[in-house]
Amino acid sequence: MDKNNLILAGSTIAIASMLLLAHSESGQAEVKKGLTANPVVKEKGVESRNEEWAKYYPREYDSWKNTKKNDKIDDQLKKNPQLAVLWAGYAFAKDYNAPRGHFYAVQDVTNSLRTGAPIDAVTGPLPTACWSCKSPDVPRVMEEVGELEYFTGKWAKYGQEIVNPIGCADCHDSKTAELTLTRPYLKKGLEATGVKLDNVSTQEMRTFVCAQCHSEYYFKKTEWTDKDGTAKTAMVVKFPWDNGLSVEDMEKYYDDIAFSDWTHQISKTPMLKAQHPDYEMFTKGIHARRGLACADCHMPTIQEGSDKYSSHHIQSPLDDVANTCLNCHQETEAEFREVVEIKLAKKEQLAKFAMDNLAKAHLEAGEAWRLGAKEEEMKDILQDIRHGQWKWDMAVAGHGSFFHAPDETLRLLSVANEQGQTARIKLVKVLAKYGAIDYVAPDFSTKEKAQALAEVEMIKLINEKDKFKGSLLQEWNKQAVEKGILNLDSRKGMSDNTSYGTQDGKDKDKK
Amino acid sequence: MDKNNLILAGSTIAIASMLLLAHSESGQAEVKKGLTANPVVKEKGVESRNEEWAKYYPREYDSWKNTKKNDKIDDQLKKNPQLAVLWAGYAFAKDYNAPRGHFYAVQDVTNSLRTGAPIDAVTGPLPTACWSCKSPDVPRVMEEVGELEYFTGKWAKYGQEIVNPIGCADCHDSKTAELTLTRPYLKKGLEATGVKLDNVSTQEMRTFVCAQCHSEYYFKKTEWTDKDGTAKTAMVVKFPWDNGLSVEDMEKYYDDIAFSDWTHQISKTPMLKAQHPDYEMFTKGIHARRGLACADCHMPTIQEGSDKYSSHHIQSPLDDVANTCLNCHQETEAEFREVVEIKLAKKEQLAKFAMDNLAKAHLEAGEAWRLGAKEEEMKDILQDIRHGQWKWDMAVAGHGSFFHAPDETLRLLSVANEQGQTARIKLVKVLAKYGAIDYVAPDFSTKEKAQALAEVEMIKLINEKDKFKGSLLQEWNKQAVEKGILNLDSRKGMSDNTSYGTQDGKDKDKK
Repeated sequence: MDKNNLILAGSTIAIASMLLLAHSESGQAEVKKGLTANPVVKEKGVESRNEEWAKYYPREYDSWKNTKKNDKIDDQLKKNPQLAVLWAGYAFAKDYNAPRGHFYAVQDVTNSLRTGAPIDAVTGPLPTACWSCKSPDVPRVMEEVGELEYFTGKWAKYGQEIVNPIGCADCHDSKTAELTLTRPYLKKGLEATGVKLDNVSTQEMRTFVCAQCHSEYYFKKTEWTDKDGTAKTAMVVKFPWDNGLSVEDMEKYYDDIAFSDWTHQISKTPMLKAQHPDYEMFTKGIHARRGLACADCHMPTIQEGSDKYSSHHIQSPLDDVANTCLNCHQETEAEFREVVEIKLAKKEQLAKFAMDNLAKAHLEAGEAWRLGAKEEEMKDILQDIRHGQWKWDMAVAGHGSFFHAPDETLRLLSVANEQGQTARIKLVKVLAKYGAIDYVAPDFSTKEKAQALAEVEMIKLINEKDKFKGSLLQEWNKQAVEKGILNLDSRKGMSDNTSYGTQDGKDKDKK
Repeated sequence: MDKNNLILAGSTIAIASMLLLAHSESGQAEVKKGLTANPVVKEKGVESRNEEWAKYYPREYDSWKNTKKNDKIDDQLKKNPQLAVLWAGYAFAKDYNAPRGHFYAVQDVTNSLRTGAPIDAVTGPLPTACWSCKSPDVPRVMEEVGELEYFTGKWAKYGQEIVNPIGCADCHDSKTAELTLTRPYLKKGLEATGVKLDNVSTQEMRTFVCAQCHSEYYFKKTEWTDKDGTAKTAMVVKFPWDNGLSVEDMEKYYDDIAFSDWTHQISKTPMLKAQHPDYEMFTKGIHARRGLACADCHMPTIQEGSDKYSSHHIQSPLDDVANTCLNCHQETEAEFREVVEIKLAKKEQLAKFAMDNLAKAHLEAGEAWRLGAKEEEMKDILQDIRHGQWKWDMAVAGHGSFFHAPDETLRLLSVANEQGQTARIKLVKVLAKYGAIDYVAPDFSTKEKAQALAEVEMIKLINEKDKFKGSLLQEWNKQAVEKGILNLDSRKGMSDNTSYGTQDGKDKDKK
């Protein structure tokens, strides 16, 4: 290095130092003071109120609050009416919307027709487990009452406890603010796949905290005895990962334990329901191979002035292509979106094949049963339907499966359709035997028609739900406020935005 | 720029200049003298002998000659016996190998059982058009006799004329050495898609010269009158691109003109045969979107000493990953190959579904006909089979379709299977009507079994071919040598490597 260069280097350091000094006295630095001072949000236990975290992490909190903007009710049963047939006999046939922002997690689960209209703490239909992914109150309650007690009882048991939507304490330790795993079922699931939990990198944690909820699960019936010696039955969330994370691995797991989420109301098939298997599908795609974590695309780094922080406005990268996808995909946003559109159209085409054929298979099987088909004639057919629908569901039930693993998604949809069609070929033979060779499955081209086939009584369900919302739900919120775990201000400006879509073809919109 | 930097810059220029001077006096520069002097390989007409070009372009010629190394006979009928059923009644059911190097183009077409065993210039089975992609003698003959005369008559008509394998004059002008389009059907095809031929870039030409042969085509029956007033019928190569380059566009084109390559021997379906649609599939993939040309991946730049040239050892980039794929895909070769393997396995799975179901559909349709099914009962079914097999064939008939457009390939295979399965569901109903509801398609799990279903008489075909090779083929070569268009030295070391695989399960290998 010659003399001139030395002088230049010296100047640079001097200027940088001055800038740093200036910065440390600025208002912006104040904002981060908490962080530098290593603030403790709560010394012991879980701080489930997101507003409490806001005091120390205002930028992260503000960005999290932006998930409020993702408030559109996007009725998937209306978009793809086949769904109501595919899920006949299961709660998803009643109500299924595209996901909204984390801010709405609690409202969505209470509003959903799937959770029904309990009238007290012990009425159903669903178990406590249905809260598990909705709130940082879940790890708080688990810590307070124990995991098995948490998983015992009906969903309504914790209405007055679980009141804050997915937020800070779902992923961060309330004392150290470090990323942490708050859900025991994720720990058990990862261990089953060979992950050593005492040796997890930060980059891995940036995926694992999301995988706590964005994974396929089932409820494992678990008998246990509480400290008073009372025999109880818990429905414990478990991830089906013992054989591995591929769709076929999980299918084998469920087959081996003869598990089904429900028996299909029309075809009598012992069904599996895939639910948000984002993590599993992500592991099968190129982004995971390249070492990316969920947060890399869903929580881009934001620069405000000289401050940098991770955006907690978690959303589809497609809603912020410039700050996410284009970091690696070096092309214009217009070109990028065009490529995405072309890819997506292929997925939509294959998904429609699978949905149509599987829905027809259910209806044809229903007709076969009605005509007197025997168990042994139907067994293989139902297995084809079970496996086909499982693959289709795994391909589409994730929030962004197609982007996480495009070619795996296309493969799964193709296999799903192959299995659905195979069932249908066999069904023609059974139907022929019972004199119905020309049976044609009824029309399911609208939500109303499809829900009628699934015998979903929307008006009744909506009326019951309204009653629940006017009574028990109000009581829950009141108790939570009294207990000091819910700050009603945190819900300010949140409309009771629902749109169930009634059977008479008119939406019941309340805004 | 300070003084020191100026001195350094000056030194760099001086050193570079010295290196350049040294280079211009080196032996390596001699090699390129021809190029610099703008050599004329042939002043007028087409120089079809590749060895003549070698005098001026020794490095390019040597690399081209390396295509001799790609000599493996890879029997696809053995690998996927379904093929013989899918192509029953068509020459491909007799013999179909994976492509070998350009060096073998003429040997492959004369050896193939598909071209049969003509005994003179007017015996079939195939038309002259079957030479069109095999040799630079094709543009030479076209220039000499005219396009329509070239396309008139049987394949055997030009056995003594078309003797040099795919080489220099297929893509280069013999006088200027510039890239040039020597096949009129490519020009017409491109114009139909809106390409202005007077405004083609060099980069486009690096694709178009390949597209001359690596495209889907059919033979258009064309009546014409020669200069002596004789009425003749030509079978002219035409690309089905009038509606566009998508598989559905081409399907519509063929449907609209009610074209079929052949009528399926078992199912009586009016079939389409896709043949090496590399260009079309390439246009549907990301590599084309990114502006790549065929030559970018199949003809990498080679540096020998200080000379750079384009490799004419045209092959799969997978045979030279380090110099091709990895130029853009920045990862290790091992990692790259692993990703490719994972992707390829998905394609194989979906291709097998489509092949199996389409083959079964043919056999089930055959049984329906045998039992007395009526035209109007079968019409829709045959249309499903036609469209399904077309899509499968377009997905796999290219040399590297899956790499050219992976997601389009998966989509096509999935649609192909959907259409094959749809045909099969309808076929159960027809078979039931004729008392054969439990009909199960016969086993086609080996080449021998599948060829038996297609009534291919391998021993007879091989014996006839051997006779042809011992007589007429020898005569062709003799005449070509006498005429001065074939240099037998150019075939030195080329074994008569064939492996037809006979029906008794033993290969008839001759090496």
